[in-house]
Parts: sequence; C-alpha cells; structure tokens
Amino acid sequence: MNVLTVFAHPEPRSFGRALLDAGSSALRSAGHEVTVSDLYAMNFNPVAGPGDFSARRFPQALQYDREQKFAHQHNAFAPDIQAEIDKLLGCDLLILQFPLWWFSVPAIMKGWIDRVLVNGVAYGTGRRFDTGGMRGKRAMIATTTGCYPEMMAPDGLLAAFDINLWHLQHGTLAYSGFDVLPAFKAWSIQYTDEASRAGYIEAYVERMRGVENDEPIPSHTLQDFGADWRLKDGIAPRTAGHRRIA
Amino acid sequence: MNVLTVFAHPEPRSFGRALLDAGSSALRSAGHEVTVSDLYAMNFNPVAGPGDFSARRFPQALQYDREQKFAHQHNAFAPDIQAEIDKLLGCDLLILQFPLWWFSVPAIMKGWIDRVLVNGVAYGTGRRFDTGGMRGKRAMIATTTGCYPEMMAPDGLLAAFDINLWHLQHGTLAYSGFDVLPAFKAWSIQYTDEASRAGYIEAYVERMRGVENDEPIPSHTLQDFGADWRLKDGIAPRTAGHRRIA
Repeated sequence: MNVLTVFAHPEPRSFGRALLDAGSSALRSAGHEVTVSDLYAMNFNPVAGPGDFSARRFPQALQYDREQKFAHQHNAFAPDIQAEIDKLLGCDLLILQFPLWWFSVPAIMKGWIDRVLVNGVAYGTGRRFDTGGMRGKRAMIATTTGCYPEMMAPDGLLAAFDINLWHLQHGTLAYSGFDVLPAFKAWSIQYTDEASRAGYIEAYVERMRGVENDEPIPSHTLQDFGADWRLKDGIAPRTAGHRRIA
Repeated sequence: MNVLTVFAHPEPRSFGRALLDAGSSALRSAGHEVTVSDLYAMNFNPVAGPGDFSARRFPQALQYDREQKFAHQHNAFAPDIQAEIDKLLGCDLLILQFPLWWFSVPAIMKGWIDRVLVNGVAYGTGRRFDTGGMRGKRAMIATTTGCYPEMMAPDGLLAAFDINLWHLQHGTLAYSGFDVLPAFKAWSIQYTDEASRAGYIEAYVERMRGVENDEPIPSHTLQDFGADWRLKDGIAPRTAGHRRIA
C-alpha cells in the first residue's frame, strides 16, 4: 500500500512524533510506501481564502467550495494545495495523526481538511459516502488524548469517542468515500508513565503491521436512505451517530 | 449583556457577513454591548505553537495545555491571545458564527478555540461543565450550511446536527462551563433563493432580540457521574450524545 500520514504536532520531541516514527518504520518493514505530511514542519497554511485559486468562477464574491470545483476543472489550485491533493490521490491508506485538542484536530490539520479535501475530488455532484471520491481507499485516526478512556464510554462524562469524532470519522472521512478503520488512541498521554507510553508505541507498531487486514467501522450506504434523506423503513441505524426518532 | 461574536468567513460580501451585521444591530437595539472578533479581518493566527508563550514551565519540550496553565499564572500569553481572553472574560454571551465546513468550524476559528480557551481560564484542575471557568455565561452557534435540514434528522444521511456538532457544543462550550443555547442554522445557503435568505436574516434578528430568555439545551452536571466517570445508576442520558450501553 501507499500510506499517507498527515501529522500535526507543534513539538518535534513529542510522544506523538515517536509514535509517528515507530508506525512509519513498521509500515515500511511490512513493505508499504510511506509519505508523511508533517504540517508544522511544512509551515502549512491552514487558512482557506481567495489566494487558494489562480482562476475564479465567481470573482465578485468567494464561495469557497464552488471555487474548489472550478479550480479542479481548470487546474487552478495554489501549488501547496495541489501537492497535497496529489499525495491524497496516490494513497491507499490515509492516517490522520494528531493530539486531540478540543475533541477534534488541531487547527493546522483542520486547515488541511478544509483546503485539500476539495469539492470535485473528495466529493461533489452527489458523490459521497459509498460513491465518494475516495472510495476504495481506507482512512484512520491515530490520536493522543488528555482524557481517560472511561470518560469516553457511551455513558461517560464526555460520551463515546465515535460521537466526539463523528464530524471527522463520519462527516469527513466516510463522507469522502473512505472506509474508516477503528481509531488508534493513546490515552492521557501526558499523565501516564514511561511503561504505558512504551506499551502504546508497541501496540501501534503491531496495529500498523496488520493494518491491511483491519475491518472498517460500520457505515451506511446511500441506498439505505430514501429520497427524503432519511433511513428507509426497515433499515436499522448501525453507526455510533444515527438514531431513529422515538 | 456584553455579547462577543467570534466570526469566521473569508468573504466580506457573504451572506454570513449580512447575518452578522443584522444580528449585531438587533442586539445593540435591544440594549446590549456587542464586540466582534472578525478572525479573517484580524488576520488571526490559528496555529498554536511555542511563540504563544513568553515564559515556559517546560522549556525543553512543548506541552501546549500545560504551558497555557503556566502562562495564565505568570501573565505570559502572546498579546493576540491575551486580547481575546480578555474579551472572553468580559462577555455574558459568546456567539460563534461560521459557515459549516466539514461539520465543524473553519480552521481559523478552530485556532481561536485552541489558543484562546486556555487551561486555567476555561477549565482546569477538575473544573469543567457546571464547574467550568465560563460558568454563568452563555454560548451559541450561528451557522450557515451547505446541506438540507432533512439530512440532519437523527436518522438522516448525516445524523443529527447536535451529534455532528457534539465536539463543539458539548466538548468545547459546555465543557468550559457555558450554558449552550440552541444553534441558529441557515440551511443550504448557497443554493436557496433571495426570499429564503431574507427570511433567515429576519429569523436571526428575531432570535437576537429575545436571546436573553432562551433556554439552554440539556446538559449533565458533574454530579451525574460517579468516580468511574460514568453516569450513575438511575441517571438517564438526556443529551444528544450520551447513551447507556445495552
């Protein structure tokens, strides 16, 4: 496989960096190609704006996602965006690795999502989920948290991890057509001991060795929904986020 | 009330800007003070990093949230962060207004959250939710979407709005101690007609006129959870995100 890891951490001596390096080595040892987009090291610009396009469909007022579609058709993306789109198109597995900040990705990675998962490539003209632009590819989150795992039980203080990350695992990755693999979580990493940290590194290496055979988390297909965009009668919700109205 | 609106939109001629202006006028007419942090206009830096602190507790390796706590104790925040913290402390109502990008805020606003809702002020030392630093204040989302409302039914293609925005309404605003008011949503704004857009402006003006009397969405208190961080026996989940394990 070609693996693209998008990595965001402001500290080059972090545990996150050690995890990245160990995971990348394990993937390479297993015969995979690994590309890393280290957003802090790249000084990646996360702020979507008019400078992202060298040609515009609506020059009078910026409608960002519509200009993405136009830029895709006219090869008009800023070079830093096009370079990341090319990496994305070339990958079989996308790993988003980041410290969990406010139950989501750091801003620099949100900017990668905003600017690189573009209309016309990742989705568009009705293509999403099982018809999304990234269909056939896999994606997963690898994250380090401040909180304890019990807090992210379904009835825990914070509610389930897959509810907190719904916007990313379902709303971003699955929406774009990726098969989403279970997230790798290194819990409460600043407040644990050296042995636990070594255990997480070992577990991640083991995970990366077999990642080709991982089963995706449950997702619905477009056919499960009717013309009213609601689950058809007889289709039971089978994700962390969908519910029948009582 | 003192109202702080944090606003993120790359286009000064957008519908979002018209909504902001109409809402701010309505609030002022009702006797409230309004401060706007227009992040694009401010050229706000969203990338959390070592430059955010003029003094460090752990100079050898950056642990961002721990340095926030230290900076709060030692008055060591970068001036752009301290200015936003001061606005935050002075407000009674915080409005986050943004176009919904990938089921969350644009990166520039995620950076405001990462850098301004700091450890020691918004939360810390066990203070969160009903004991969070922002207790006594209210907060709400005002957003414009690409999708249709039916898609965000609980059994809709995307699942409920409050599940998609769980990381922000619960994991960020409620966590910090805010009472979270129901979100204002202007649906599918690029693909609707002029009359609908005018209707949304009118509805938002009406909403702002009475916002003082709005009821917050349901939330649990810390006392609802046991020492194991799980809902106590007999406490029924009453949020969009919490569930009992079957």
